[in-house]
Amino acid sequence: MDNRPIGFLDSGVGGLTVARELMRQLPHEEIVYIGDSARAPYGPRSAEQIRSFTWELVNFLLTKNVKMIVFACNTATAVAWEEVKEKLDIPVLGVILPGASAAIKATRNGKIGVLGTPMTIQSDIYRHKIQALSPETEIENLACPKFVPLVESNNYKSSLAKKVVYETLRPLVGKVDTLVLGCTHYPLLRPIIQNVMGQNVKLIDSGAECARDISVLLNYFEINRSRTAEPLKHTFYTTASPMAFREIAEDWLAMDLIVEHVTL
Amino acid sequence: MDNRPIGFLDSGVGGLTVARELMRQLPHEEIVYIGDSARAPYGPRSAEQIRSFTWELVNFLLTKNVKMIVFACNTATAVAWEEVKEKLDIPVLGVILPGASAAIKATRNGKIGVLGTPMTIQSDIYRHKIQALSPETEIENLACPKFVPLVESNNYKSSLAKKVVYETLRPLVGKVDTLVLGCTHYPLLRPIIQNVMGQNVKLIDSGAECARDISVLLNYFEINRSRTAEPLKHTFYTTASPMAFREIAEDWLAMDLIVEHVTL
Repeated sequence: MDNRPIGFLDSGVGGLTVARELMRQLPHEEIVYIGDSARAPYGPRSAEQIRSFTWELVNFLLTKNVKMIVFACNTATAVAWEEVKEKLDIPVLGVILPGASAAIKATRNGKIGVLGTPMTIQSDIYRHKIQALSPETEIENLACPKFVPLVESNNYKSSLAKKVVYETLRPLVGKVDTLVLGCTHYPLLRPIIQNVMGQNVKLIDSGAECARDISVLLNYFEINRSRTAEPLKHTFYTTASPMAFREIAEDWLAMDLIVEHVTL
Repeated sequence: MDNRPIGFLDSGVGGLTVARELMRQLPHEEIVYIGDSARAPYGPRSAEQIRSFTWELVNFLLTKNVKMIVFACNTATAVAWEEVKEKLDIPVLGVILPGASAAIKATRNGKIGVLGTPMTIQSDIYRHKIQALSPETEIENLACPKFVPLVESNNYKSSLAKKVVYETLRPLVGKVDTLVLGCTHYPLLRPIIQNVMGQNVKLIDSGAECARDISVLLNYFEINRSRTAEPLKHTFYTTASPMAFREIAEDWLAMDLIVEHVTL
């Protein structure tokens, strides 16, 4: 048993989709979350900059005495997961491998679409991971640079969102039977994405898949939190405005939250 | 990527229920299996003897250059999993934690039954693991010493099996809503067990749960087998008669098998 919290990092609010899944699947685990909204989106930045920002988030979480770190951000996972995992002596989990595995299991026709930030798509990491396991699978990559700003500005239910998603995804419609939401912000746009792609396309939420993996790793490393531990006190940190963060987070998580500002 | 096989150990043929799940979920992974049928059942033996036998099985698998070892045996997991996991530098997975977690998720009324061998029940390990995570859960333990011999003697579909299962489980009927098959041999008796307990009781197959965890750990440690690797060649070893082993294994796995005798 290990009653310390699990640390989540993201470029902004997207990782809340992973945190929500974790709270649903493992309601007795405590969360410390850091979202770097002040510097979001990470997607268009250089690998060097993303690596450096990610280490700042990791080091912040380490000061909070976390027992595990979840990269609830595809871009950070693509750039820095392997390096951080190797350096730390606590488990470090990324969202890409769980998402890639789930997509391979889901596809029937072997044609998988991947949506991601410019950096995630440029890294071509989903193709790399999926084809290493399943070489015959065809990948259609699509960068969606406008999606994260829509979510971070709390416009993910707007008519603008519908228009942007429709225009962005049009080239993919009818081409794949499985679509990886390869950015943790995108599940907030899920109803619109599903509508544009059609009800028969299976959407893979990399964050939800990752939450199931967290449960397995907590078991494997024997670091579950005891249900007799102190009452839960999730804490959320943002590098930008706590008020803006709280608005999205309370909508998404349907609970009152403690959100604190932090400067890295 | 790591194209080496996954090693499975069991006191006999029970671990085949885990191997079958693995083949279904991860058809591209290769298996080396060792069943100690000559010394089955392990359940009534002393902890010291079980520990010693388990190490013999582990050392045998290590000579087969495995990348991971699965304790496809609850009794061996109860006695020696933590010790072996600590000593080896490859991942070692047991069946108890995956089964315990699944049972906690499945129960609605907080009353979980656990079937196991005398040693597994005596160790009280399911109660220990389940209540550490969920203290309010009530556990009804039941040792089923006659079940493994029924399976090892290929009598698991007989009218004798129906009689034995009925008489053994009678004290549990109506008392729990979830029942852990806390021995990998028991899924071969599943239809009879379900029939005796009633269709509303959720049966937890610790081996099937474990197979899902294997997939997560292969991802986490980045040791999946490439689908471009050499054709699969599963190998099964038994310390008793290969013919008797093959009969059960081919019935259960519905495939032709290479079964070799080995002396430990």
